[in-house]
Amino acid sequence: MRAIVFDGSLRYTADYPEPHRPSGEALIKPHLVGICNTDLEITRGYMNFHGVLGHEFVGTVVDCDNPQWRGRRVVGEINAACRRCVTCLRGDESHCPYRTTLGIDRRDGAMADLFVLPEACLHEVPATVSDEAAVFTEPLAAALEIVEQSHIRPSERVAVVGDGKLGAMIVQVLRLTGCALTLVGRHPERWELYQRQGVTCTTSTDVPAAHFDVVIDCTGNPSGLATARRLVRPRGRLVLKSTFAAETQLNLSMLVVDEVQLIGSRCGPFAPALRLLERGLIETSALISARYPLDAGLQAFRAAPGQLKVLLSV
Amino acid sequence: MRAIVFDGSLRYTADYPEPHRPSGEALIKPHLVGICNTDLEITRGYMNFHGVLGHEFVGTVVDCDNPQWRGRRVVGEINAACRRCVTCLRGDESHCPYRTTLGIDRRDGAMADLFVLPEACLHEVPATVSDEAAVFTEPLAAALEIVEQSHIRPSERVAVVGDGKLGAMIVQVLRLTGCALTLVGRHPERWELYQRQGVTCTTSTDVPAAHFDVVIDCTGNPSGLATARRLVRPRGRLVLKSTFAAETQLNLSMLVVDEVQLIGSRCGPFAPALRLLERGLIETSALISARYPLDAGLQAFRAAPGQLKVLLSV
Ligand SMILES: [Zn+2]
Ligand SMILES: [Zn+2]
Ligand SMILES: [Zn+2]
Ligand SMILES: [Zn+2]
Repeated sequence: MRAIVFDGSLRYTADYPEPHRPSGEALIKPHLVGICNTDLEITRGYMNFHGVLGHEFVGTVVDCDNPQWRGRRVVGEINAACRRCVTCLRGDESHCPYRTTLGIDRRDGAMADLFVLPEACLHEVPATVSDEAAVFTEPLAAALEIVEQSHIRPSERVAVVGDGKLGAMIVQVLRLTGCALTLVGRHPERWELYQRQGVTCTTSTDVPAAHFDVVIDCTGNPSGLATARRLVRPRGRLVLKSTFAAETQLNLSMLVVDEVQLIGSRCGPFAPALRLLERGLIETSALISARYPLDAGLQAFRAAPGQLKVLLSV
Repeated sequence: MRAIVFDGSLRYTADYPEPHRPSGEALIKPHLVGICNTDLEITRGYMNFHGVLGHEFVGTVVDCDNPQWRGRRVVGEINAACRRCVTCLRGDESHCPYRTTLGIDRRDGAMADLFVLPEACLHEVPATVSDEAAVFTEPLAAALEIVEQSHIRPSERVAVVGDGKLGAMIVQVLRLTGCALTLVGRHPERWELYQRQGVTCTTSTDVPAAHFDVVIDCTGNPSGLATARRLVRPRGRLVLKSTFAAETQLNLSMLVVDEVQLIGSRCGPFAPALRLLERGLIETSALISARYPLDAGLQAFRAAPGQLKVLLSV
């Protein structure tokens, strides 16, 4: 079958072996797969992953054990947990120490004609949510993890640092809280959507230091983190929403003096992400920069840096 | 001037004395004033209030000390606090023990040609928010107080008990969190709006007991509170959002055994309410049942019970 594979270098192949479907897992034919910053980092060595890329997908179940899923249009949580260990049994499946992760860690991803994922990871896509919207479920869930972990009060001042792919989801989730929201970014040409949505957009040089109750860093680079630290007020919260390929140094003494709370944030809940999409509260179509067929996947990866969402059609 | 007055009975008068404007307060000409359940309860003796009714308003400042407010279109927080006591100085002005409350407690309200309110209570209405939407700022702020007090997680199951005026605001605020939301009510003819917004609507006999992480009671009657208590799960949160004219008995032992957290909730923050209205995230026009001129105020009060929002045009 066709696949986009990373094995030290990125390549497209037309004869990758079809996946074996273990019991309890579903065989899925993807319709659309998004390219995310994590994919780009993997091609630079992040997670030392070798295999098929792709973890943001919408597709159709073509084979599975439980007949309820057959033929269903689905999205899927990317962490395949053991569901038996202490961590899983207390409900923290996305932190299972035995987990594999779709297209990221010891599990082939969705940029192929077929792939497998445990049935327990699947969520059916409501009929009114298009493929083009559903493919944003995974990053939207990651944005929702912020409000799952931390209480953002409607009266708080919140800054999102980073106007990239993930920032687009985070800004749209946080505006729904009613908070006073500022997007700090470097791409004014992307701000029209957010300004129309009632969000203040600015560059980092235009915001006063220590001004925000909550600051979210989703820049994916050290200078963005430095900006985020500068903006958060004493006793405020700093949410880290980037995975860095390079290790980042953080001056913890400053955090102690200012009593800033640091919150690492990763994967989030799919069900509310699908509910927000179904309720029409998240704009996605304006975020799609380009769309390539699977065979042109290498071209898509070359185009992706500096773009918003680039999609692969399978 | 004209006014709707309660002094043991409700009456309309054309020659109520014009208010004296104390220093630091603004003289306001209201455009629209909403009738709320609290107004109806006052006419049954609640708060033992005598004076001009009305606390949900949008209007124009006609006189004040600070020239920045003159001619501005405003809404206003209803609690006029001393801003000097310990409670005020720690930021809890709406709990000031020396406060008066617009149209509710020792302060004439907005159902008149003119009324006064401290400048510190005022919020300018953004140009894009109509009078008909802005008049909902006060009840919308009251709904936002729930998410100000308590962290509603996107993955939680939440029930709102009561499909009246306040329920309409609460449902619309809570749907924005992404939570799985059920409205439990008695007026199926009002549910089309909420169903279109992705909210499950049902009657109390159709929901399983102890099913919800968070339950909000905004029915304003004892049987609604009983329903709300039945729906909340052990260790869940029960938010009380009604003011009862009659004293209510509550069996606290059951709350202790089930470790249910009880949260009383009253007035809320205006700035995020205006932001949500400006962002177009709250539907208000479908909630206006009727509109009467000020002179027909008694007729409006007779029509209000059992209706959604009834407005007075001044
Ligand atoms: Zn991703
Ligand atoms: Zn596990
Ligand atoms: Zn009211
Ligand atoms: Zn005070």
